[in-house]
Amino acid sequence: MIEALVFDVFGTLVDWRSSIAREAESLLAPLGIARDWADFADAWRAQYQPAMEEVRSGRLPFAKLDLLHRRGLERILADFAPDRVDEKTRRELNLAWHRLDAWPDVSAGLQALKPRFLLAPCSNGNISLMVDLARRNGFPWDAILGAELARDYKPKPAVYLAAAAAFDLEPGQVMMVAAHAADLAAAAAAGLATAFVARPDENGPGRGEGSPTLRVDLSAASIGELAQLLCGTERRSLRR
Amino acid sequence: MIEALVFDVFGTLVDWRSSIAREAESLLAPLGIARDWADFADAWRAQYQPAMEEVRSGRLPFAKLDLLHRRGLERILADFAPDRVDEKTRRELNLAWHRLDAWPDVSAGLQALKPRFLLAPCSNGNISLMVDLARRNGFPWDAILGAELARDYKPKPAVYLAAAAAFDLEPGQVMMVAAHAADLAAAAAAGLATAFVARPDENGPGRGEGSPTLRVDLSAASIGELAQLLCGTERRSLRR
Repeated sequence: MIEALVFDVFGTLVDWRSSIAREAESLLAPLGIARDWADFADAWRAQYQPAMEEVRSGRLPFAKLDLLHRRGLERILADFAPDRVDEKTRRELNLAWHRLDAWPDVSAGLQALKPRFLLAPCSNGNISLMVDLARRNGFPWDAILGAELARDYKPKPAVYLAAAAAFDLEPGQVMMVAAHAADLAAAAAAGLATAFVARPDENGPGRGEGSPTLRVDLSAASIGELAQLLCGTERRSLRR
Repeated sequence: MIEALVFDVFGTLVDWRSSIAREAESLLAPLGIARDWADFADAWRAQYQPAMEEVRSGRLPFAKLDLLHRRGLERILADFAPDRVDEKTRRELNLAWHRLDAWPDVSAGLQALKPRFLLAPCSNGNISLMVDLARRNGFPWDAILGAELARDYKPKPAVYLAAAAAFDLEPGQVMMVAAHAADLAAAAAAGLATAFVARPDENGPGRGEGSPTLRVDLSAASIGELAQLLCGTERRSLRR
């Protein structure tokens, strides 16, 4: 019996690409910088996995994702606008990740799931980032779980296991929800149930995962459809 | 400028004594056990500080408060009902701490504070316990902070500092709210602002802290009065 749902956030719940493009344009265009802002978002996001790998591999100690985002930002700004962006703007731009907009189905879908399941992000984003996204988009979390609690990054098993343990649940009582096969494969290997949510346009039109490429327990086109599937066929048991 | 309020929970937000007495009676009286149930609650609670001191001192590794509660329960049951309580009942009784009722002013007070401040518990209770109390009583937390995140117990400074760091705030931007002078003294020593809330009946009629015995930034008779004091004189700055 599934008691809790834990969610990937970047890409699965929020549209990081459009939001970062909007924020970058809003902060950098006034400085006279011209660029394809979606490309800027892609370039920044491309720094994400290599930065986390430094931590996952043990080469660097754990640091919050905000700090990894800042390292990535320095790298891409060095490439195309080395001397034109002051420190204040860099700080503000780095916090663009705290101002991402949700896909339109998410808030209502989470609200529908809330009466029956414990809900938390299991994201690589840090706690303050998750809190700001929740306030902005109306995500009704019970707790903020994920990388900062586990002090390591997905897809390391410790992150999924720490989320289940925080809720006092066995891994099999927790369902990981994500739009990414790699995340779900790692969650399944750690013993969690899995739900795929399609985000076919995450990386631009038609450039996202539109269908699952691995065996999952559930597959849905939106968080709302996930809620229909789960609340129609299962009822949250009352543990206490 | 205060950006976040973090709260002590046992005694400050919830009436642990009446709730534990009710739960103990409900589970143990049917086994033929007769006792003053408020005394039972007091005896169990008396195990609390010594159990945490084992962790704070480094003699034992960090363990969730649920586990410390269970150790304390074993000790008091051994004293007065050694062979009459089965394992299932012990487990269920231990989870009584997840079913505590809030003082009547708390839920509305927190809701009034929510638009202006980030809100989190900074409790020695574990995450799942805090989640269950929040669901039961309508506490609108942004995140669950406290001992399980810091992996140590108040009044160690690490617990207060970890709460501020999770919100990306300086200690002085965070106000600790508690009904206990010792908690507030430790928070102030760690650099946090402090608010005292009176709970004169926490340990029974007239047996609680009814007024602050140390210098605090604010003192209130309830969470509702705290909200009036804070929202009338300060406005939450928008950081992002």
